[in-house]
Amino acid sequence: MKTKVVFCFWALFLLGFQDCCEGWLLASSKPDRDNAAAYARWLVSHNSWGVLNTLSIELEGAPFGNVVSFSDGIADKSTGIPYFYLTTLDPTARNALKDHRSSLTISEYPLQTCGKADPENPACAKITLTGKLVLLDANSKESEFAQAALFSKHPEMKGWPKSHEFQIFKLETENIFMINWFGGPKPLTVEEYLKYKM
Amino acid sequence: MKTKVVFCFWALFLLGFQDCCEGWLLASSKPDRDNAAAYARWLVSHNSWGVLNTLSIELEGAPFGNVVSFSDGIADKSTGIPYFYLTTLDPTARNALKDHRSSLTISEYPLQTCGKADPENPACAKITLTGKLVLLDANSKESEFAQAALFSKHPEMKGWPKSHEFQIFKLETENIFMINWFGGPKPLTVEEYLKYKM
Repeated sequence: MKTKVVFCFWALFLLGFQDCCEGWLLASSKPDRDNAAAYARWLVSHNSWGVLNTLSIELEGAPFGNVVSFSDGIADKSTGIPYFYLTTLDPTARNALKDHRSSLTISEYPLQTCGKADPENPACAKITLTGKLVLLDANSKESEFAQAALFSKHPEMKGWPKSHEFQIFKLETENIFMINWFGGPKPLTVEEYLKYKM
Repeated sequence: MKTKVVFCFWALFLLGFQDCCEGWLLASSKPDRDNAAAYARWLVSHNSWGVLNTLSIELEGAPFGNVVSFSDGIADKSTGIPYFYLTTLDPTARNALKDHRSSLTISEYPLQTCGKADPENPACAKITLTGKLVLLDANSKESEFAQAALFSKHPEMKGWPKSHEFQIFKLETENIFMINWFGGPKPLTVEEYLKYKM
């Protein structure tokens, strides 16, 4: 009985340690908040999901957000370009094929690196990349890289049903809106963002 | 020394217990996935933040997603109506005052109740409420209720700077897109959603 209790406590401790300290370890890798390019790239490369927004065909042009997984690279090769694995069974891909205008919104909150700050508090960073959501040519080098990027971050994607005809899309960013502290959005050009070396 | 190590282990254990088991406890309260209204209301009332989409004035009508906090009620009085505390210093409120079309997107993923499922896996639920984002009359009964709902879920809002002139908005939902399992979006009318008693 005592052995079981001790085992249970240790299992909980280890599980707990993993949960509580991942955020803590990640927080220690956060770039200086005044380095906008570094912060934006950190936010994008450490998150695995966000909300991808398109103009709805079915809802008369309404802005339609959808939870999606993404990846901007493979280990040690982050690009800042978000790649997606989408099917036209879902409205987002259908909307993008009709009108490319799109944005991807990511919060720092789920990384558990915001301390006690509310998700809407500027001390908890958020970023919106706005641009064009485009389908990649399935035979291109970029598509090969994007697939490796997606499958390494989201291993279960490899097994997703072939019948759903998933295709790889990317967001071509044209504008960046990022708040990572008080004082309004941080000035950051797309060039500065893409050029930054992680 | 030994006392310090033991104390540190216990502190980590307790922190960890809180982190690891909140999701587990919440998961046990999940409604049956075939009860679409119950599931949608559970998802909205248990989340505290999401991505609020509007049509961008500055970016030529692009769909612009923004991380926001919200609340749909006070303890034991969830309404299914998301209320927001926004300032026109932020583009979302400015966009909404020009064109009400909007959507709020919420994921089950940050609740830590999806087990091992990827955020894009249909086993990890997501919901998008599409409709009109409207400003509440500050002197109305609804505004009073909405403020109590927001401040009880996001206590730090009470102290947000008066100079920012935060105002209360609500999303008047007209369409619901929810995926909470395989087989496509769950049929769910706004009436069924709003009528459901938690």
